This record gives sequence, C-alpha cells and structure tokens, in this order.
Amino acid sequence: MDERLKKQLDFALEIDKEKNIFRQTHLSGHGRNENDAEHAWHMAIMAYLLREYSNEEIDISKVMLMCLIHDIVEIEAGDTYAYDAENLKSQKAREDAAKEKLYSILPKDQKDEFIALFDEFEEYQTPEARFAHAMDNLQPLLLNNSNNGGDWKEHQVTAKQVYERQSKTKLGSQTLFEVSDHIIQSHIKKGNLKE
Amino acid sequence: MDERLKKQLDFALEIDKEKNIFRQTHLSGHGRNENDAEHAWHMAIMAYLLREYSNEEIDISKVMLMCLIHDIVEIEAGDTYAYDAENLKSQKAREDAAKEKLYSILPKDQKDEFIALFDEFEEYQTPEARFAHAMDNLQPLLLNNSNNGGDWKEHQVTAKQVYERQSKTKLGSQTLFEVSDHIIQSHIKKGNLKE
Repeated sequence: MDERLKKQLDFALEIDKEKNIFRQTHLSGHGRNENDAEHAWHMAIMAYLLREYSNEEIDISKVMLMCLIHDIVEIEAGDTYAYDAENLKSQKAREDAAKEKLYSILPKDQKDEFIALFDEFEEYQTPEARFAHAMDNLQPLLLNNSNNGGDWKEHQVTAKQVYERQSKTKLGSQTLFEVSDHIIQSHIKKGNLKE
Repeated sequence: MDERLKKQLDFALEIDKEKNIFRQTHLSGHGRNENDAEHAWHMAIMAYLLREYSNEEIDISKVMLMCLIHDIVEIEAGDTYAYDAENLKSQKAREDAAKEKLYSILPKDQKDEFIALFDEFEEYQTPEARFAHAMDNLQPLLLNNSNNGGDWKEHQVTAKQVYERQSKTKLGSQTLFEVSDHIIQSHIKKGNLKE
C-alpha cells in the first residue's frame, strides 16, 4: 500500500481511542458518562442545526470539522473538566505535546492542516472558532439541564464558575447565550447551582 | 423562547439517544461494542481525511453531514446488523417510520432538508452518497481488522457476505475498495472468514 494512504489509515485507527476518553457530563435520561467522540459528534450536528444563530457569518463546514477534531488531543492528554482549576493549569502543555504526537501520524500536509485547525479553535479569534466554542459550551449544558443539573451538583459547581465559562458563548452567539443564561438562572432558583 | 429555536433544541436533545444504540462492531483493542454516534463521528472524520480517494468530485461538507446524520433513524428503528438477513427485510419500513417521527421535531424547512439528505444517502445515486457509504463500510472494517476479525468470527460471517457489502465501496472509491479487498483476503487466509 501507498505510504500516504497507510499513514492516513493508521491515523483513522488511532483516533478510535477517543471513544474511551470519558467526560464529566452524563447522557440525558440520567445516563452514563459521555465520551469525547460522542460529544464531538453532537456538537458538529448542533453547529449545523443552529448555524443561523452565529453572530457572524461562518464557514459551517470548517466549524463542523473543528467540532469533530477539537478533542482528539485528549487521547494523549486526557479530559480536563471545565471546573477543575488545578488540571486546567497544565492543560495547554499536555495538549500541545499530544497534538504533536498524534497528528504526526498523518502525512505532513494533513498534519499541518489539522494542527492549524485545532490551534484556530483554541485561540478563539475567528468567527468559526467562536461558534464552535459556543457549541462546546451549549452541548453539555443541554444534557446537564435535562438531568436536573446533576453534573453541577456532583462537583458542587457555583453559578459564578458556570457564568465564567458560558459567558464566552456570547462571543459566538448572543441568542444561544440568552438560552444558556435562562437555563442557568432556572438552576440557581432550584438550588442546583450554588450562588 | 422562540418556537423555532425551541424545536431545534428539542431535536438536539432527542438525538442524544443515538449514543445508546449499539452496533455489532467492537472498538479497537478488543474493546466494547461501538455505538451509532461514535461510528458517525468516526466516519465523518475519515471522509474528510480520505476525500482525495473519491472516484468522483464531491462536496465534502455534504458528505460529512450525511455521515453524521445517517443513523439517527436508528434511535427509533434500532440497529440492523449488515449480515442479519431477516431484519434487513424490514429495515426500510422501520427506518421510514422513524425518520418521519424524529425529523418532525424540527422546524419544517430543516425537517425537509435532513430527510432529503438521509434519502440521498439511502438511494446511493450521488457521488456524495456513494463516498459516504464507502466510509460506512470501511470504518467497521478497519476496527474489525484491528481485532483480528472478531466480529466476523462471532457471527460466522462468510467471505461472500462481506464481499457483497464491501464491493459497493468500489462505487465510491476504487482505491479504498482495493484496501478493503486486501484486508478481506488476509482474513480469509487466516481462517477468520469462511469461504
């Protein structure tokens, strides 16, 4: 087999491992913990479905691809919970090492392309990155809302922490931030989030 | 909240259930059974990664979206194993009822769009549908190959059955069919597939 194709298939098999990286979020219906691959799939469909709410014009194909690949580094770096202050400090260094290792399996041009896309997501500077992040925030919020805020209760997350994260949704979509705000307020009232 | 947005968010929550639809394929490393959401995520990335091998020019954004949504109907209709002759007979009727029920959660324009995309996939007539199907065939083949053909052995699948399915990969990608053929031949030699 051609060397280029072999590298591409090796990478395709390697990323299968993302299905074993579990998150703190639980599936709806008080289900099990969600894994990164499921989360990425869900985000990509939501991005397409909700694209009309982006603050700025976006290349939806790029957003979807960004959603699909944004957590591949966690195969090596592990999942970092959004409200785990200690692990958040080392997250960038761990993920940078991981991205070099994982994307090096690919042919050079595709390695460069995927790393550029991941970096663009991380840097939050383009309309596509901002809308993809809005999905990264909204998707677990919908699940957690459907489960009566169980993930927040389990980790004793405060309203302030949730707003710190969710307020960035505003950069990608004002409309979807308002939805998030409404959900958060309802959970403060129910006592699921500490003030 | 706006009625349109409410419908879109209801649909976004509904499709979370796809993560509970398990397939016969096992994850690499002799892992657990794979679910439909993981399978769809994997196919969409593989489509992007391998798009250069499509026989015909394709709109890759459309292929990715097709990959992402092609199994949503299984939330209602259940998974039908590729080599289960009895259940394959009723598959279309079950999936047609499911698609009407599930996509009716969406606003009308999006319901029509998603159903058209699903139908296009099922009908195998466009370059995008053919390449998406090539991914639908290649993705489990890669996993099963990595697990020494375990899924075939478990279900006593024959080489003839596998070729019937995989030969359609040729319609989407001659190059990827040749990869598949090479893999299948190696498993016939190892006795993992009955002749």
